[in-house]
Amino acid sequence: MTITIIGVGLIGGSLAIGLRGFQTRIIGVDNNDKHKKEAIELGIVDAVLPLEEAVKISDLIIIAIPVNTARKILPYILDNISQEAVVVDVGSTKLGICNIARKHIRRKNFVASHPIAGTENSGPKAAFSTLFENKLSIICEKELSSDFALNMVEKMYNILNMKIIYMPAEPHDQHIAYVSHLSHITSFTLGLTVLEIEKNEKNIFNLAGSGLASTVRLAKSSPEMWAPIFEQNSDNLSQALDAYIKNLKKFKKIIDNKDNKAAYKLMKKANNIRKVLDGIENNIK
Amino acid sequence: MTITIIGVGLIGGSLAIGLRGFQTRIIGVDNNDKHKKEAIELGIVDAVLPLEEAVKISDLIIIAIPVNTARKILPYILDNISQEAVVVDVGSTKLGICNIARKHIRRKNFVASHPIAGTENSGPKAAFSTLFENKLSIICEKELSSDFALNMVEKMYNILNMKIIYMPAEPHDQHIAYVSHLSHITSFTLGLTVLEIEKNEKNIFNLAGSGLASTVRLAKSSPEMWAPIFEQNSDNLSQALDAYIKNLKKFKKIIDNKDNKAAYKLMKKANNIRKVLDGIENNIK
Repeated sequence: MTITIIGVGLIGGSLAIGLRGFQTRIIGVDNNDKHKKEAIELGIVDAVLPLEEAVKISDLIIIAIPVNTARKILPYILDNISQEAVVVDVGSTKLGICNIARKHIRRKNFVASHPIAGTENSGPKAAFSTLFENKLSIICEKELSSDFALNMVEKMYNILNMKIIYMPAEPHDQHIAYVSHLSHITSFTLGLTVLEIEKNEKNIFNLAGSGLASTVRLAKSSPEMWAPIFEQNSDNLSQALDAYIKNLKKFKKIIDNKDNKAAYKLMKKANNIRKVLDGIENNIK
Repeated sequence: MTITIIGVGLIGGSLAIGLRGFQTRIIGVDNNDKHKKEAIELGIVDAVLPLEEAVKISDLIIIAIPVNTARKILPYILDNISQEAVVVDVGSTKLGICNIARKHIRRKNFVASHPIAGTENSGPKAAFSTLFENKLSIICEKELSSDFALNMVEKMYNILNMKIIYMPAEPHDQHIAYVSHLSHITSFTLGLTVLEIEKNEKNIFNLAGSGLASTVRLAKSSPEMWAPIFEQNSDNLSQALDAYIKNLKKFKKIIDNKDNKAAYKLMKKANNIRKVLDGIENNIK
């Protein structure tokens, strides 16, 4: 079996490493010469080929590039694969690519998915075998994929030790705006704000503790990956940001008024996130 | 030597455990009956006494309670200690308590400090011996403490393996607003917003990854501890929040306009936080 992974960065590279036992040949496709070289040197892929060649000879094609280029490339891939080949994408927004796939005559060869895993690092060097371990992957519009394609992708996620849930693309993008995309914005913005004020980076380094490190960690994430996600999930994210800014202004007013009781009440409510987080952390462990 | 720790929670409890080799007797003072019992049962303190008794017989008194009650209790403590006793506070805001101490005839017996360490957990059960290890403690207005008092507190932080830096109270509170207090607000607010929208907590649990877990971790923090900090650092924090909200609105506008290039540029700037964080994380390790 031949698998092509388009985009051998953190996600694509980790998929390649995680699927090693699952097949015979992994081909990498990448625009970035440095990433191509690294993917070969690190033994992440067996070969690097141009997209045109790789697509024709593969049984499974995984699209692991930013969501805007994934959308653009999908019709070309579906046009050029063999009859029985399966194409899966792993992007963080699903409605856009599902809308494009729906118009294609080979829609049934495609599976729209989103494995919820990542780190703030990027490139083949950031890839590691257990990135997906015990995490969740979402498959959208499964009724539009053939049983053959769906089974292959489910098998792939099983090999990676992921749980699978199914949902339509629209609620996927709405929920993910709140539980993933929003926290990236708050983190990027915190990083920006701290850097603007604390011109002397040595001050931040000296004074900040593990609290800032954890809250601002996602501000290290790849702009190449995230700019297109924000663009594609713009409407949902805009609503999430409105809700967040509203709560933030409420909190600020309480602080301006030095209203201890109201601040206490607000934080007590936020504390309820603990049981949710304990679940996530136990899951990750 | 007898040490009294007022407030045997996460910070006070961890101080008690960390200072074990340093003295002969550790006395705990706490309003909370459950915490008193736990501190004895866990062997964190040798005895629990009422404040009045503990203060009179101690060589070192550590104030590790919320910053509003710390301010209130300080004059009483200074009034009732023996001539040579040393009092130190470990609160996250310094100007308020320094202003109060400055008026006291025994100012020189007092050291205003802020060991930068903590977790999102609270109470004696959350205490652990290495909380302070390789972290930084700030001492404010050291010129108003006697050499004897300053030496004792420096020795205490050395035993805990902390580095010490010195700064006036006002810049301390300003810097800490940005590098610590602000990130607590953004995290509490993120927790609130996600909980409001995702009424079904199982959804959050299912869909959120390690990114949300890290960004929202501080939303688990103790409201009892943080409400008074926000109140006391209200002015600085209000400025920090204004800057943060301004950046957030700018980011939102970019997302509303689907302006990929501007989003990319903003995130690239925020990425500079990486070198700062790498420093913090190496420091923590």
